[in-house]
Amino acid sequence: MQMTLYSYFRSSCSWRVRAALSLKGLDYEIEAVNLIKDGGQQLSEDYKKINLMAQVPALKVDDTVITQSLSIMEYLEEICPEPSLLPKTALERAKVREICLIIGSGIQPLQNLSVLQYIAKNEGNEKKLEWAKHVIEKGFEALEKLLVSCSGKYCFGDSITFADCFLVPQIYNAKRFGVTLDRFPTIERIDATLKDHQAFIASHPSNQPDCPSDIKA
Amino acid sequence: MQMTLYSYFRSSCSWRVRAALSLKGLDYEIEAVNLIKDGGQQLSEDYKKINLMAQVPALKVDDTVITQSLSIMEYLEEICPEPSLLPKTALERAKVREICLIIGSGIQPLQNLSVLQYIAKNEGNEKKLEWAKHVIEKGFEALEKLLVSCSGKYCFGDSITFADCFLVPQIYNAKRFGVTLDRFPTIERIDATLKDHQAFIASHPSNQPDCPSDIKA
Repeated sequence: MQMTLYSYFRSSCSWRVRAALSLKGLDYEIEAVNLIKDGGQQLSEDYKKINLMAQVPALKVDDTVITQSLSIMEYLEEICPEPSLLPKTALERAKVREICLIIGSGIQPLQNLSVLQYIAKNEGNEKKLEWAKHVIEKGFEALEKLLVSCSGKYCFGDSITFADCFLVPQIYNAKRFGVTLDRFPTIERIDATLKDHQAFIASHPSNQPDCPSDIKA
Repeated sequence: MQMTLYSYFRSSCSWRVRAALSLKGLDYEIEAVNLIKDGGQQLSEDYKKINLMAQVPALKVDDTVITQSLSIMEYLEEICPEPSLLPKTALERAKVREICLIIGSGIQPLQNLSVLQYIAKNEGNEKKLEWAKHVIEKGFEALEKLLVSCSGKYCFGDSITFADCFLVPQIYNAKRFGVTLDRFPTIERIDATLKDHQAFIASHPSNQPDCPSDIKA
């Protein structure tokens, strides 16, 4: 099986999948899609044949392409069950997916490129940053309370799950938009723990082949 | 097992779960949460104990609450595997989840209440409707192409899946925002097929206990 990930170093959704691939020790190639260059390479007709939504990530598995980070991760979990990134019981798995979707449906889509471009165009750059910060903080307020109740060393107990693959990249976004973590001690603690984990280092934006050297430094 | 669904008749995310519950023939009670009344009952301190994100749906299973429609549906699939709402192979399941997430992360969050309220406040009602229409049409353009390649009688082949539970409520939203389906013949066809399905009739907004009688008529 040959896997190619269409990825942008800074895309939090791409990072989720890179983290899962790395945690499972799966080999893959990266095909970089620069969301900024040439007006956005994801908008090219060629790339829209890969991902109809003109977004990253997309995972090409042999001749089939899967898009949407969580569907890719569920697929990886099914074809490569060990190490598992989901807990043992149905109810526990539901809570992990809940964390993923609070981020993946409740936070990230509201601060993604297309929304921010719309606000910047209509209301200016300051309003754009204000909005991004607002939606992330609102989401983190909910997440913090949820994580107080279910986290151990990681988001859900003491094993790394999908939820961690979603949380760490969202924290990276949060920091880019000036959100400080003081009010979110559990989120901050989990971030500090995972910062040194090999899979999160390997999948970090700074360590991607398409990360410009001035950002890397 | 006692299940209570916190639901709003018109919420597309609630409808997804109502459809899944109905397709699986599971008994549940509805606890109505009116997103408009009293400035939004989902914002009450009591409800935020149920759903920290102050959104519907939420499914209470005995003493545990699960939020986020897709995590609830994956849970239902796990505890009640028949009739299955996912196809047989990992790759096929990935495609079904991809359709769900194109809607659940790529379309619906961009036209949900909080975003529309923000745009209405800052730019007026006309811009709000224009935005909602734009994001739904953009998503439907991608979905239509995807469905041409994978649909049969329903979104994915000839069995009803999670994808149908996501699509039908999103079409309902689309129509509310003035999107016409002429450009999306596959979406229109699937909608017409499912319109007469018992589970989609039972879970339809008009047939909910909290649907006002003037809307029902």
